[in-house]
Amino acid sequence: MGMEGIWFTELETPGLVLGLKLKKVIHQEKTSYQSLAIVETEVYGKALILDETVQTTLGDEYFYHEMIVHVPLHTHPFPQRILVIGGGDGGSIREVVKYPQVKEAVLVEIDERVVVNALEHLPELSSGLKDPRVKIVFADGISYVAEQEEAFDVIIVDSTDPIGPAAGLFSPEFYRNVFKALAPEGIFVSQTGSPLFAQELLKKIHKELRTIFPITRLYLTTVPTYPGGWWSFTLGSKKHDPLEVNHGQSRVPTRFYTPAIHRGAFNLPPFIKEFLNEG
Amino acid sequence: MGMEGIWFTELETPGLVLGLKLKKVIHQEKTSYQSLAIVETEVYGKALILDETVQTTLGDEYFYHEMIVHVPLHTHPFPQRILVIGGGDGGSIREVVKYPQVKEAVLVEIDERVVVNALEHLPELSSGLKDPRVKIVFADGISYVAEQEEAFDVIIVDSTDPIGPAAGLFSPEFYRNVFKALAPEGIFVSQTGSPLFAQELLKKIHKELRTIFPITRLYLTTVPTYPGGWWSFTLGSKKHDPLEVNHGQSRVPTRFYTPAIHRGAFNLPPFIKEFLNEG
Repeated sequence: MGMEGIWFTELETPGLVLGLKLKKVIHQEKTSYQSLAIVETEVYGKALILDETVQTTLGDEYFYHEMIVHVPLHTHPFPQRILVIGGGDGGSIREVVKYPQVKEAVLVEIDERVVVNALEHLPELSSGLKDPRVKIVFADGISYVAEQEEAFDVIIVDSTDPIGPAAGLFSPEFYRNVFKALAPEGIFVSQTGSPLFAQELLKKIHKELRTIFPITRLYLTTVPTYPGGWWSFTLGSKKHDPLEVNHGQSRVPTRFYTPAIHRGAFNLPPFIKEFLNEG
Repeated sequence: MGMEGIWFTELETPGLVLGLKLKKVIHQEKTSYQSLAIVETEVYGKALILDETVQTTLGDEYFYHEMIVHVPLHTHPFPQRILVIGGGDGGSIREVVKYPQVKEAVLVEIDERVVVNALEHLPELSSGLKDPRVKIVFADGISYVAEQEEAFDVIIVDSTDPIGPAAGLFSPEFYRNVFKALAPEGIFVSQTGSPLFAQELLKKIHKELRTIFPITRLYLTTVPTYPGGWWSFTLGSKKHDPLEVNHGQSRVPTRFYTPAIHRGAFNLPPFIKEFLNEG
């Protein structure tokens, strides 16, 4: 019951380590973009690991996927065309296809091997990828978005952190292209890292989005396997304000999300408001 | 920038490890009750460790202390007499003495060495212990509470986990004595562990408190250094419902707490509601 056995350890930030005991290493490979592992952890069940960083585990993926998807899809009154960039594990798409009004869900993933492995080893996450409304494009999300015009009601960036292939997904140029790619009532959401360990990034993104979107909002949620167990999302909206969502019940079945949790997620602690508005 | 150097590692639950790189071990001793260490971590600053378990760090102590104190002290319309059991580091008392209407704040801590070391090494937490309204009693909280009758407006259990000396602070007999020790409009709050890793405990406490208090509520918050970064508190109230707190602003200066966050903390995810009401 100690620390014997096979462990995955992640240096989450310098000075902070997460250790997960493994029951099994299911698969390991080096793709053209990154190292990829699928493991079974004792505590959180199966997990996808990219470049030595936990992307998602079955034990807490629904905290993250439900909050990145249902917040914009409850804010938009009639979301029909959805774009997910990254998210090759399929978790976000699984949540998107729960909405009967969704007509088209496009997944743009740069690394085909993530999708192939998720389909083979993580059916709990990837099941939605088989929905007939889903189109999978293996391409760079940055160039894909640059070519779109008013094509989507909701665009979700479910990427790795802004180092390596995902860096361009956090740039002002990308955000301007996202704005152009969104329909007149469109909504954009991106995961934007840890509110404790990525404050400079968060501030920068928030500032940039404020110059592009009429409505920019930060929201926070618990994600147990992410550094500090706490994560941020930044939302830019052309028309609809996520604070005005007044549904009593969720539009779709969920395990973590409720409209009350949605509203609560935008209530920022004073120390977060403070650094966000600094300088 | 890797894992070299001196690290504190905690087995948070079997199969899950937290690792914190240390700048310095400030103090270590074995008290009559537990092992005690005060260290300086790279990521979260100074930390108090009891029996190899992180109790609190300067980097996130205010998440925990503000949520355990300000929720009941905003729910009670005029809290004057406060009892804190455990909490020898002083963090909860520091928050309690922020209220001008508080006339008496009693800290009952079983281990005098925790208080002595907090006063010496953790002034950021222990400063409030010097407030003239504070009375420190070195005793077992269980027997202390058994002797009180309608003596307190708010009773807070800021204890270690329910193994070792704190076990009796989670028993039905203790809860009945807490009820008796509370004034007619009194409110009780206890930390009740991880909503992911202590679900059986949480359910049991919730059930027991429901047989004793007219109002029983669970609330959740982020605490980055606790297992899964997510923590639960259970509140029992004789009269006032924490859901009805409608202040716009906090009554006292805070870094994490706001009345909106207070209200949001009671919005439970569906999977939590489900296990809470099972069986």
